[in-house]
Amino acid sequence: MNIGLDMMGGDFSPLEAVRGVQLYLKGTTAPATLFLIGDETKINPLLQEYAIPAASVKVIHAPQVIEMNEHPTKALKEKQQSSISVGFHLLATGKMDAFISAGNTGAMLVGALFSLKPIEGIQRPTICTILPKTSGGTGVLLDVGLNSDCKPENLNQFAILGSLYAKHILGIDNPRVGLLNIGEEEGKGNILAQAAYPLLKDNSQIHFIGNVEGRDLLIDKADVTVCEGFTGNVILKMAESLFDISREKKIQSEYFDQFDFELYGGTPLLGVTKPVIIGHGISHSKAFLNMIVLSQKMIQTDLLGKMKESFLS
Amino acid sequence: MNIGLDMMGGDFSPLEAVRGVQLYLKGTTAPATLFLIGDETKINPLLQEYAIPAASVKVIHAPQVIEMNEHPTKALKEKQQSSISVGFHLLATGKMDAFISAGNTGAMLVGALFSLKPIEGIQRPTICTILPKTSGGTGVLLDVGLNSDCKPENLNQFAILGSLYAKHILGIDNPRVGLLNIGEEEGKGNILAQAAYPLLKDNSQIHFIGNVEGRDLLIDKADVTVCEGFTGNVILKMAESLFDISREKKIQSEYFDQFDFELYGGTPLLGVTKPVIIGHGISHSKAFLNMIVLSQKMIQTDLLGKMKESFLS
Repeated sequence: MNIGLDMMGGDFSPLEAVRGVQLYLKGTTAPATLFLIGDETKINPLLQEYAIPAASVKVIHAPQVIEMNEHPTKALKEKQQSSISVGFHLLATGKMDAFISAGNTGAMLVGALFSLKPIEGIQRPTICTILPKTSGGTGVLLDVGLNSDCKPENLNQFAILGSLYAKHILGIDNPRVGLLNIGEEEGKGNILAQAAYPLLKDNSQIHFIGNVEGRDLLIDKADVTVCEGFTGNVILKMAESLFDISREKKIQSEYFDQFDFELYGGTPLLGVTKPVIIGHGISHSKAFLNMIVLSQKMIQTDLLGKMKESFLS
Repeated sequence: MNIGLDMMGGDFSPLEAVRGVQLYLKGTTAPATLFLIGDETKINPLLQEYAIPAASVKVIHAPQVIEMNEHPTKALKEKQQSSISVGFHLLATGKMDAFISAGNTGAMLVGALFSLKPIEGIQRPTICTILPKTSGGTGVLLDVGLNSDCKPENLNQFAILGSLYAKHILGIDNPRVGLLNIGEEEGKGNILAQAAYPLLKDNSQIHFIGNVEGRDLLIDKADVTVCEGFTGNVILKMAESLFDISREKKIQSEYFDQFDFELYGGTPLLGVTKPVIIGHGISHSKAFLNMIVLSQKMIQTDLLGKMKESFLS
């Protein structure tokens, strides 16, 4: 199993990426081989400093870097020797089984959509986030920003992808799917939600429990919540801000500690043919560690294979 | 100044409404005359019990009650002697200057839209909420659920209504208006946000500061945040749930204490010709008190007159 890691992506790379690799290798008995992609003159000294065993990693030299604010399409075209471009090339050609980056989000999305195919039958790939529940568990919310305008069928497909993710990655049997809405009863909501409801209700691949509201997002109601990417992105960023607020206000709370995005590593891109994980720009070692662990789990559970099967019919 | 209060609306009425009236009359030097609308056989004994001075209130007998789960249009038609129907009649005919209810939200909205006119020039009335900021101030978010699908011009009008509310009710000079979006730069977002941005930018009646994101909702960035009512309602209910969570988790935090909706009383309906305030079903005395205070302020500042002027041209 080969997992590729963009060593140049994120505000604290390559140092925090190397430290994440160190945490991963120390804590895993049968680690994957890590392809460390980036500028070898910057990576190698750190690997030595942090005593990373050479047998577990393979440095792939990529001399260019796509910076955080570059235009994604332009940057990918002009910087074919960048860590992101090289990573997607290795992923698309089967040399790696997953690719992780905390770099330019747009470049990661564009790169994934252009170099990988969507899974046959999937109209729109999606990105999801984990929301911590007051009951102690976690839920999946999707889409969180890739598809800011959606058709009803997109939400229906997100429900399948989210259910498979909840089942195989979060270990939730028969995950409950809720449609994010502004009222409980069928027929409530905006045009999209009204049209998506009957599709979800008739979808035999999911366990649909009806509408859920803003007040239900953080409690143990639905395991998977679907919405278009506009509302989902607002929720994601508001939830992330709760962690910052709890720190700023010195609130001691195990619950709000769970809003630390580094615990979940990054945002998986679901619906493309290979595992791709996009990290936050301000990722530290813990986030890199958890992104590696997550991608390993996605490979081990054959999540992508299960998604492909679901959309075969 | 006559302020009408539906004594039968809400889960804890008329008792909590009477207790709210008591708090108001005790704490105000020049109180408005309160029209207490509802079943006099239930109200009068409570007024006596709580020693409400007869000079400050006028009981308006309304023998019927629209229950929380009744169909709004049907209930308003069939129960013309209900407290909500009687209240809107008194408001529309000029006998009262404001109307408050914690009863059936749908009936309040339908009643307001049918018995009152929208302010000339306003396409869609809206409801707003207060969001507490970590810096100590408060912001206005609108729409929070009345308009789940919007056109760009609706958001532009909400920006004007929200700015006037922030200025005259919250006392914020030159309030900063943000467009809720999923990225900072112009051109980001869904079709609605992309189309609303240039309208807001060209609107000389507001102080537009550009896009704001989910992470900015609770910090001191915009004083007024505009969005369609779907996303706004999800945020509102998620924010309300934070108060419940902070109680459940026994989190000691002055900041999260500010998420107690009773502090803000209720949701004003903006864009109709008279002040209408809709309370939460589970309102207690503090919420009733604050709804009375808010409606008094809306009358005293002639907020509605200012809104009418703004849309004259």
